[in-house]
Amino acid sequence: MKMLKNSIFRSKALPRAGIFGPAALLIYDKRLSSKLGAWPRAFAACYAVKAGENLKAVENFPAHIKKILKLTEDFPRSQSQIVALGGGSVGDFAGFVANVLRRGVGLSHLPSTWLAAIDSAHGGKTALNVGGVKNQVGTFYPAGRVQLVDALLNEQNEVRADEALGELLKMAIVDGGRWSKDLAQDLSRGAKASALLSRFLMPAIQAKLKVVAKDPREITGHREILNLGHSVGHVFESYYGLAHGEAVALGLQFALEWSRHKKVLKVDKTLRALESALRVKRPAKKIPRKKFIDLLGRDKKRGLEKKIRFIFVEGLGRVYREAVSVEELGLEAQRQGWLRP
Amino acid sequence: MKMLKNSIFRSKALPRAGIFGPAALLIYDKRLSSKLGAWPRAFAACYAVKAGENLKAVENFPAHIKKILKLTEDFPRSQSQIVALGGGSVGDFAGFVANVLRRGVGLSHLPSTWLAAIDSAHGGKTALNVGGVKNQVGTFYPAGRVQLVDALLNEQNEVRADEALGELLKMAIVDGGRWSKDLAQDLSRGAKASALLSRFLMPAIQAKLKVVAKDPREITGHREILNLGHSVGHVFESYYGLAHGEAVALGLQFALEWSRHKKVLKVDKTLRALESALRVKRPAKKIPRKKFIDLLGRDKKRGLEKKIRFIFVEGLGRVYREAVSVEELGLEAQRQGWLRP
Repeated sequence: MKMLKNSIFRSKALPRAGIFGPAALLIYDKRLSSKLGAWPRAFAACYAVKAGENLKAVENFPAHIKKILKLTEDFPRSQSQIVALGGGSVGDFAGFVANVLRRGVGLSHLPSTWLAAIDSAHGGKTALNVGGVKNQVGTFYPAGRVQLVDALLNEQNEVRADEALGELLKMAIVDGGRWSKDLAQDLSRGAKASALLSRFLMPAIQAKLKVVAKDPREITGHREILNLGHSVGHVFESYYGLAHGEAVALGLQFALEWSRHKKVLKVDKTLRALESALRVKRPAKKIPRKKFIDLLGRDKKRGLEKKIRFIFVEGLGRVYREAVSVEELGLEAQRQGWLRP
Repeated sequence: MKMLKNSIFRSKALPRAGIFGPAALLIYDKRLSSKLGAWPRAFAACYAVKAGENLKAVENFPAHIKKILKLTEDFPRSQSQIVALGGGSVGDFAGFVANVLRRGVGLSHLPSTWLAAIDSAHGGKTALNVGGVKNQVGTFYPAGRVQLVDALLNEQNEVRADEALGELLKMAIVDGGRWSKDLAQDLSRGAKASALLSRFLMPAIQAKLKVVAKDPREITGHREILNLGHSVGHVFESYYGLAHGEAVALGLQFALEWSRHKKVLKVDKTLRALESALRVKRPAKKIPRKKFIDLLGRDKKRGLEKKIRFIFVEGLGRVYREAVSVEELGLEAQRQGWLRP
């Protein structure tokens, strides 16, 4: 097992349950049961959940927390720890539980998807959904340990890797470090998404944590640059039912194209290679204008003046926030041919 | 208006709603409506609640948060603020809401009871109850502002002041500062509880915050000394249906008596005066031993070995934690004549 930056560990196989202490509750995606074998039984307690957005519904939270309290009632608070094994929804839910259970217990993440491994397991965001709207409730509660387990990640279908590529490319554009050039090179050589994710997992995580460290609780707003590709990405995700990473890839294309149109974008060789990797197939169906506006409005980053802080790209490693109105965004979407005329 | 230590303010009347900014949601005890007049309407939004433990029931949380999100949907997150006006239950609930609403918004407390003003509004504990068990869920989220409003506090019946005296005496014993001697003197002159609370509110709060600062998230355990009088106090509160402050006074008597019996307690003049002020009428009815053990067990400070960290008193300003078993506690309760033989 290799200890990487801070509290991030990487190992080939699942770690011994014992490293999480004598009072660890494993919260895990029950679809992974067959792959885990007897491993969950080595924990003081475990709680299998059905992963997905419904797990995060606040309406179900009272029933979950009641069961979790029952399972952990004999755990001394100081040694209690939640170990979350699963994708983003399991991590968001379990992180929230760890934060609020008896006013806070230990938390470890073992992400089982590329998306969680590269993004949601880091930076401390926990979340529940309210009335079907995502992440309306949540906290900042960074895990004491994130364990990246190759055996788990490599179990995934290559399709899942393709879906996560958008977030990897986003981090490369935001960061612009040496690794983004290596990534561009690998891309132009036609490397597989899973190979790229495996190779660039750590630099991408470090790039994210560098941004997070400057604004851990999203107070100054600096952290919002991580939303590059997300404002309209969320619209595409919800309207077309796309995978998150795919929607982000389309959102990135949108942001790059808008930046180009505004003449703020300067493309270099690396950025060109990254951008050409973004060629996710754009769905043929156009979005009714009203639906587009509505879906943007549900985005929780909307403010009083219905302004959205959009992230523009000036070049590799150079992005900036600018408040744009929902109307402006709509016009740009029209110009880019996303909306029904 | 006087600004006292850090973020604590004291004023004769309610402050202008405007000081809480343009996106403040007032959460207030609806029983106070008549006293508040038109004041709540000066807030961007307000939410009247029925104060009490049921407000804190996690089972009701989804419905509350849905309404609160609706009320605040147009608030920009960075300017959003929850203003909690009420007693302990309103503060615990509203503090939790402020922590989790869109991953955290501003929080101000305007305690309306002596108990909240002296204790629960400070130190950042937020809480919900689960399945009828108190404070099983919660966070640490200190208010950016606590405003002590004399007009609110003095509206209370003197009975409420008597009920809060236990917490004031507890803080004096834990702290032992100059003010505890002044308090002892006022007590021996027969001062009314409300006068004592008003005079010693700030030193008692400062004493609490001194302890909290050393262990804000109850990790080292130092903060637990604030539980002086509480382990058995909670049993008395729940078995006899006593007010919290009264139960704490009985719990303090219990702790002092046990400390004396163990020969660790050294009583001086001040401590004697404080102790004699504790003479809350002890209920005649004795507690069945099993019930006593059960109620202790529900106390969330219980650990794996069914040990409770009990707070003993060595003298004024000198208290210490010691793990005792539920059995030992039961024997002591028997010795002190609390249990049915």
